[in-house]
Amino acid sequence: LTNISGSSEYFERGVVTYSNKSKMELLGVPQKTLEEYGAVSMQTARAMAIGIKDRAKVDIGISTTGIAGPTGGTKEKPVGLVYIGIAALKNTEVKRFLFSKDRLQNKEKTCHKALELLLETITKW
Amino acid sequence: LTNISGSSEYFERGVVTYSNKSKMELLGVPQKTLEEYGAVSMQTARAMAIGIKDRAKVDIGISTTGIAGPTGGTKEKPVGLVYIGIAALKNTEVKRFLFSKDRLQNKEKTCHKALELLLETITKW
Repeated sequence: LTNISGSSEYFERGVVTYSNKSKMELLGVPQKTLEEYGAVSMQTARAMAIGIKDRAKVDIGISTTGIAGPTGGTKEKPVGLVYIGIAALKNTEVKRFLFSKDRLQNKEKTCHKALELLLETITKW
Repeated sequence: LTNISGSSEYFERGVVTYSNKSKMELLGVPQKTLEEYGAVSMQTARAMAIGIKDRAKVDIGISTTGIAGPTGGTKEKPVGLVYIGIAALKNTEVKRFLFSKDRLQNKEKTCHKALELLLETITKW
């Protein structure tokens, strides 16, 4: 997002919320959502996208949450599981992906997919 | 910082504060500091590092602020100018760098230098 000169004209802020505490403090994700569904869930991704959009007072909020790996996977939530949320005005969408076992590839693919979803969103605007 | 599996055990949060508004809201950088010295300054880098450390309640806060380029440079603040701040407990240090004219190289070098300063800091601990 910020590899292009002048990106400060459209990118307002981002938050990298590794801890649950930071997800609650910086994005307003309800503790109940984190406890019931976990940090890597459709519900958390949804709350994160809405949270950044509302707090930054911008048009579009994007969130990603996943198990990048190689450790941290479980049977229900395997390595490579990623949710990407896009909150745009009144409409919020969350998509589920199952990428690879490779951490850097997962980070790369997540970025790529998120930008793709952003492009779709602003194309439909 | 998060390219290594298990990084959530030591990385609590990050904020990407492209706008001055987000620097004030998320890091508590005083408006006066931004107006007097600008976003790319030793004073702002200092306030950012202290801000993230205090708000996240962690041991070490790192900040970077600079002109990545290729646009946005001035005579006083040329492309490649970067300040990196490290706030650790009672001691805050800010260093000034003049990297290249290339945006991606500047981002890369800034990351690398910041990690180097972090390593120095925890080595002296």
